[in-house]
Amino acid sequence: MPTSFATPEDAEKAFYDLLAQSDADKLMLAWSDEDEVLCVHPTGVRLTGLLPIRESWRSIFDNARIRIDADLIAHWQSGAMAIHHLTEVLYVGDDPNPHGPLHVTHLYTRNADGWRLTARHASAADDSHQAMVDSAARTLH
Amino acid sequence: MPTSFATPEDAEKAFYDLLAQSDADKLMLAWSDEDEVLCVHPTGVRLTGLLPIRESWRSIFDNARIRIDADLIAHWQSGAMAIHHLTEVLYVGDDPNPHGPLHVTHLYTRNADGWRLTARHASAADDSHQAMVDSAARTLH
Repeated sequence: MPTSFATPEDAEKAFYDLLAQSDADKLMLAWSDEDEVLCVHPTGVRLTGLLPIRESWRSIFDNARIRIDADLIAHWQSGAMAIHHLTEVLYVGDDPNPHGPLHVTHLYTRNADGWRLTARHASAADDSHQAMVDSAARTLH
Repeated sequence: MPTSFATPEDAEKAFYDLLAQSDADKLMLAWSDEDEVLCVHPTGVRLTGLLPIRESWRSIFDNARIRIDADLIAHWQSGAMAIHHLTEVLYVGDDPNPHGPLHVTHLYTRNADGWRLTARHASAADDSHQAMVDSAARTLH
């Protein structure tokens, strides 16, 4: 696993690959150690700073292994910043049923070491409501 | 109210000022009409495109007037993009009690017309848990 990422996509792939290893120290290799960092978990807990973020992932991994399937919904890039907005589905421990989905906004920043994750905002998606909105949109058009 | 904003901060102030007017058409003056736009409401509903976003705000305003007090927690800027992460407290209708708080990530982009809001991701904060994390952090340091 390289610790220098040439593109935001490389940093994102590393984040998900490292997350599947359930090792909080390794996971932090995908995060920026130069910029202010921030993480909002789907529980509504917000953490700032590498140490609190690492400890929050450590306590998540203490409870269960997690694997995430992510779909890119929209992305924007300019200068040394990239934003990816994704839908995540989680697989927890040995449970074959998907959990979530989550709406996720990732901010990547580029520094001398390449691209790293700088902010992650994850929150629960309302599936039923979304389906209703999609259905209404189809009816209107 | 100008419809061209010289800074991300100007666009953000316009968003909150326009929101307090409960007019979905006016609110959209703060949003980019050039870039892909996205809005995640704290209900977990995600909308993409100016028309669905406008209609979602219209149905919110049909239910109640809203005023938002926002605190900037972190911000990043590079090239033609700026990210603001905020805590929002909502005042709904005539209820003097604050609602929320919400964790909010705003993406602003700059084009020929100046800065506009391009993506908003809002989700409920877990106050009790956050207080516990803050308390634990104080105990550790």
